[in-house]
Amino acid sequence: MAGDSFGTLFRVTNWGESHGKAIGAVVEGCPAGLKLSEEDIQVFLDRRRPGQSSITTRRDESDQVQIMSGVVNGMTTGTPISLLIPNQDQRSKDYSELGSIFRPSHADYTYQKKYGIRDVAGGGRSSARITAGHVAAGAIARKVLEQALGTEIVAYVKSVQDLTMTLDSEAVDASLIEQTPVRCPDLKLAEQMIAKIEQARKSGDSLGGIVECRIKSVPVGLGEPVFDKLEADLAKSMLAINASKAFEIGSGFAGTLLSGTTHNDVFINQDGEVKTRTNNSGGVLGGISNGMPIVFRVAFKPTPTIIKEQETVNLEGEATVFHGRGRHDPCVLPRAVPIVEAMAALVLCDHYLRFRAYKDLFNV
Amino acid sequence: MAGDSFGTLFRVTNWGESHGKAIGAVVEGCPAGLKLSEEDIQVFLDRRRPGQSSITTRRDESDQVQIMSGVVNGMTTGTPISLLIPNQDQRSKDYSELGSIFRPSHADYTYQKKYGIRDVAGGGRSSARITAGHVAAGAIARKVLEQALGTEIVAYVKSVQDLTMTLDSEAVDASLIEQTPVRCPDLKLAEQMIAKIEQARKSGDSLGGIVECRIKSVPVGLGEPVFDKLEADLAKSMLAINASKAFEIGSGFAGTLLSGTTHNDVFINQDGEVKTRTNNSGGVLGGISNGMPIVFRVAFKPTPTIIKEQETVNLEGEATVFHGRGRHDPCVLPRAVPIVEAMAALVLCDHYLRFRAYKDLFNV
Amino acid sequence: MAGDSFGTLFRVTNWGESHGKAIGAVVEGCPAGLKLSEEDIQVFLDRRRPGQSSITTRRDESDQVQIMSGVVNGMTTGTPISLLIPNQDQRSKDYSELGSIFRPSHADYTYQKKYGIRDVAGGGRSSARITAGHVAAGAIARKVLEQALGTEIVAYVKSVQDLTMTLDSEAVDASLIEQTPVRCPDLKLAEQMIAKIEQARKSGDSLGGIVECRIKSVPVGLGEPVFDKLEADLAKSMLAINASKAFEIGSGFAGTLLSGTTHNDVFINQDGEVKTRTNNSGGVLGGISNGMPIVFRVAFKPTPTIIKEQETVNLEGEATVFHGRGRHDPCVLPRAVPIVEAMAALVLCDHYLRFRAYKDLFNV
Amino acid sequence: MAGDSFGTLFRVTNWGESHGKAIGAVVEGCPAGLKLSEEDIQVFLDRRRPGQSSITTRRDESDQVQIMSGVVNGMTTGTPISLLIPNQDQRSKDYSELGSIFRPSHADYTYQKKYGIRDVAGGGRSSARITAGHVAAGAIARKVLEQALGTEIVAYVKSVQDLTMTLDSEAVDASLIEQTPVRCPDLKLAEQMIAKIEQARKSGDSLGGIVECRIKSVPVGLGEPVFDKLEADLAKSMLAINASKAFEIGSGFAGTLLSGTTHNDVFINQDGEVKTRTNNSGGVLGGISNGMPIVFRVAFKPTPTIIKEQETVNLEGEATVFHGRGRHDPCVLPRAVPIVEAMAALVLCDHYLRFRAYKDLFNV
Repeated sequence: MAGDSFGTLFRVTNWGESHGKAIGAVVEGCPAGLKLSEEDIQVFLDRRRPGQSSITTRRDESDQVQIMSGVVNGMTTGTPISLLIPNQDQRSKDYSELGSIFRPSHADYTYQKKYGIRDVAGGGRSSARITAGHVAAGAIARKVLEQALGTEIVAYVKSVQDLTMTLDSEAVDASLIEQTPVRCPDLKLAEQMIAKIEQARKSGDSLGGIVECRIKSVPVGLGEPVFDKLEADLAKSMLAINASKAFEIGSGFAGTLLSGTTHNDVFINQDGEVKTRTNNSGGVLGGISNGMPIVFRVAFKPTPTIIKEQETVNLEGEATVFHGRGRHDPCVLPRAVPIVEAMAALVLCDHYLRFRAYKDLFNV
Repeated sequence: MAGDSFGTLFRVTNWGESHGKAIGAVVEGCPAGLKLSEEDIQVFLDRRRPGQSSITTRRDESDQVQIMSGVVNGMTTGTPISLLIPNQDQRSKDYSELGSIFRPSHADYTYQKKYGIRDVAGGGRSSARITAGHVAAGAIARKVLEQALGTEIVAYVKSVQDLTMTLDSEAVDASLIEQTPVRCPDLKLAEQMIAKIEQARKSGDSLGGIVECRIKSVPVGLGEPVFDKLEADLAKSMLAINASKAFEIGSGFAGTLLSGTTHNDVFINQDGEVKTRTNNSGGVLGGISNGMPIVFRVAFKPTPTIIKEQETVNLEGEATVFHGRGRHDPCVLPRAVPIVEAMAALVLCDHYLRFRAYKDLFNV
Repeated sequence: MAGDSFGTLFRVTNWGESHGKAIGAVVEGCPAGLKLSEEDIQVFLDRRRPGQSSITTRRDESDQVQIMSGVVNGMTTGTPISLLIPNQDQRSKDYSELGSIFRPSHADYTYQKKYGIRDVAGGGRSSARITAGHVAAGAIARKVLEQALGTEIVAYVKSVQDLTMTLDSEAVDASLIEQTPVRCPDLKLAEQMIAKIEQARKSGDSLGGIVECRIKSVPVGLGEPVFDKLEADLAKSMLAINASKAFEIGSGFAGTLLSGTTHNDVFINQDGEVKTRTNNSGGVLGGISNGMPIVFRVAFKPTPTIIKEQETVNLEGEATVFHGRGRHDPCVLPRAVPIVEAMAALVLCDHYLRFRAYKDLFNV
Repeated sequence: MAGDSFGTLFRVTNWGESHGKAIGAVVEGCPAGLKLSEEDIQVFLDRRRPGQSSITTRRDESDQVQIMSGVVNGMTTGTPISLLIPNQDQRSKDYSELGSIFRPSHADYTYQKKYGIRDVAGGGRSSARITAGHVAAGAIARKVLEQALGTEIVAYVKSVQDLTMTLDSEAVDASLIEQTPVRCPDLKLAEQMIAKIEQARKSGDSLGGIVECRIKSVPVGLGEPVFDKLEADLAKSMLAINASKAFEIGSGFAGTLLSGTTHNDVFINQDGEVKTRTNNSGGVLGGISNGMPIVFRVAFKPTPTIIKEQETVNLEGEATVFHGRGRHDPCVLPRAVPIVEAMAALVLCDHYLRFRAYKDLFNV
């Protein structure tokens, strides 16, 4: 398999480069009969698009999605949905330097060595721009889940560098997330984060941080044993996002500091429904959703694009210096939020369809 | 896809239950011409098997692997290698209670709800016992990588609860790992870990911790853009291991505390070879190996099996109490080490074959 | 993907060589709650096994299947079902000659060139013996279809060389098929076929022919547009059977002699159900089952093993002569019948599960 | 898996409907460094496009392909190649009748029942128009094969209804194929075929026939044992083409009339190379290419669109009459030729990359 497709029954194939004619995604396996318009998708793309606020990159792309197939009279037909997003701001910048020099911690070097050729402009295929396709496809997955299950997927910025929100995922008020451009639901902390990001921009530096995601109304039973565990597929999807370096579900790394006695989530009967009192499991047991909220976190490194002089090597492997300049995104965290949500939606929608294949087949 | 298979070109299909006749794995896509004996595999199974030391579960399984196909005169033929591991210690314990009660933080509940039926004995399919198949298959993948590339995969226990080794991955002396049953290369810390685990056993409790893995001699170019990134597939493979809750590569979560200036790995020319001065990237850039050591960590929760009384519900959802008893594994970390190595080997071997499909095809 | 697995949701992985310890298959994706015993599978293996009658090979294999996993108390659990069939009659024949010479129209040559090494004994992996795994897996698929849909899969020998049954598939009385060892439901023709096969055996020659398959009670809607059309997957499954050279569905090659006016199957309302008056389509339209009987035919070449002297080359490519001797199967057609049925069952069961994933998801 | 993708390493994902904005295909896994222009692809699309001659449908589509990604400075980069073909002649025909009536032997009925909704215009997703995407993707596969192996893929019309070319595949002069619009290299027979097709058009009827394909310069070793046999994947690819009903390789159905003695292809040493004297095998042995020409045939039914009155049922299942009218394609055979070639190229290119993954890995 080439690595540009994701999912089994609900499957997205991504294509495009940062400065080509367009980018896009083809969604296979969307059920027939879903109401779907370009606006349904656009709202999520607008949350990811560059230039949306003062703290993101100033590249200006309207990221207008076009549905090219699979929808008739505003309704999906069960056939592939081709999504096309034209590239507009293909700045006539001179990229010739970037063709012969490797920017530190970018994919320039590995693409060059793997393929022997690469689309230099804007990072080409390795650009985070191509995650617009994930967001567009994820918008469809999310709508399937909402319609079928009432699933609610909410992500937000939990930390920017050392500024960390202490609020538990369960206590987050989702309505506050979009109130600031940094997408942290702790509004006071959000202001500090924004100030920190603006300072990083001024100094030509960049910041990393953590996005947390909380998913409610997932039925018991999604996820397959052994390899295609729900958390395994979530982990893969999150580590596939540009600049991500870590994933944890439920108690995650911090859970290693507890003992079994304090970590175990005991089962309780709450008004006739089986729940767990705590949720260290993060909504999964043995790779299968247990009906509790799914909670996970993803770490994003400080973006490698900085406006500084850095040591590096050129195509011939000789030592040289790279001078970063131009516009840069000092912190990808705010724009990562809709991407995390989209990838989670893709994973859940795929597992939901896999689940349906067997549901109530033999009565046991 | 059912979730019992993993990989694309080098593909393993796992089967079996904890207390069935046997467990096993079928390995498809192993190249022809590899010398392979049961001993080559057994050495890794012996590191995973229960009962190997005082700090692991006392269930006694010799885990003797049989190669059922794919090898003729000690050499692989390119056809599927079927690996069979008979179950021996199928203790005639009465599991009837477990059929009607859900152990906290085990997969009992989710399997029951998903399938309506489950193999109760020993946890059935959800038992960590089935990772023996991963280790056996991984032993073959590892041998392919060693023979073809000289790849060295080394994992070890980095922490048990709050006892954490501060040694950097690069400084780890691999020859020390197997010197203690806890598999921590800091021998002094290892003793403390062992003491802590023995105390947990006595008190009927359990401990979690972190396994770190370092992989050397991986060529530049393994991993595919966008979805099948090397770190994405590693993340999936690690979150698929029983009791794992988190994965981080390179700087991971801690990297979010740095800024771009300090986090970026500058390229240098070292004796004619391109290297990076630091390795915050953990050996991958844009989803593709960059030739530096691959370094990642996996968090394992405290095992849910504890010898305590815990609240829970029964099949009917009514509140009840579960009394853990019998033998238990107070800390899975030491036995997780060969499993982490095996999963990493499976991922790398698969990506190596995918890499070969294109290598030097057109001269660019 | 290695080529030893087949199917997406209902997936079988085949392993083993003709003269190894055993052969087997792992079935992933079988729904939970199906009653399943070794006897359910054995009955189909007995129809395929060698030595079952005077007109098949005299190699004597009882082909006793063992269910190694996935079934508890006679019921499937939704986890992989590992099927093991020990090889018994591993005649201590000297195969050294076969290691250095290529039998005409066998896979010896291509395996040797592809892998550089091969299991010579009995044809190793290229032996039709490994289709026992298909039959065993297919027995499970068939039971799923029967229980869920009442599907009836019936195959039979339509021709042996120039002896061709003229009976239309719809007129075949399935109860007559097993009345003769040749499995042709035209009992008079069956006698002639048997005589012809026995004569071929005596003269050391071999015969080919055609198997026809008729499948009833398949709901409308199985099969996916464009590539995974039902007839496309059936064609693949049939051409994967050893010695098969052709596949046709419905009118097939003969249909090219008609015109649109005579070939089109007009729709009629028959007692409230939509049917087609004719069935030139063979039960599929646009890759999707239309509710009519699925009817297809598979051509099998005369088996290449003959007791004659034939020109050939040796490992070094030098001209030499191969003297066929020993037992041989003069006509694979009778034993191909259960294999054709099994492969059809695998395809249909997989498509049925894929169909279920979407069924009634949104009410349109 | 949704059924809109095909291949493993070289993988094409098809999207679009007959009368939507556009149709397209995304090609994953094309090697980097291949020179590729839109003209390279256009030449094959021009052979498939409607309106190209007097004997094809008069729908006029220029089928101009646009490469949207994956190519920089006329060279592939190893990333997905997105191919877009705008639909132009979206005649403002009233399709309302077709929404409530099922055309005999079309996919209208099965799509309606499977999805509950369908794009009625021009057949929507079930239209043969979407095979333009196959031809475009196949053009790339073919170029990979030509550059890497010198492979030559040639298809031609072997029969139109009862007019059958008797020339053996080996004797076909490829330069004659394109000399007539019917693409039969027997020029005298071609004239008769053309006359027959024109008569069918006049009478509002349609004709079927057989396309034969001959492929030279395929190395020994392509194809995988057991399920992904080369002929199995070819069969699948051919039965996936609209209106195809049968596939045979080598001797095919006619081979069943021979005996082993006459059917076996004996190996000979021809000027230092191993060949077979005859080619009843059609270039494959045991699922793997043997270096001889690959020869297979595909049967296409008479197209269901005819200008006649036919019985049928409506959406409610009630008997009614369908009056075919407007433009129609009286015989798809000439336009099927480039589609057959394209699908063969896709299969071979995929298997070639799979072959490369293992080639010369261990020296045996």
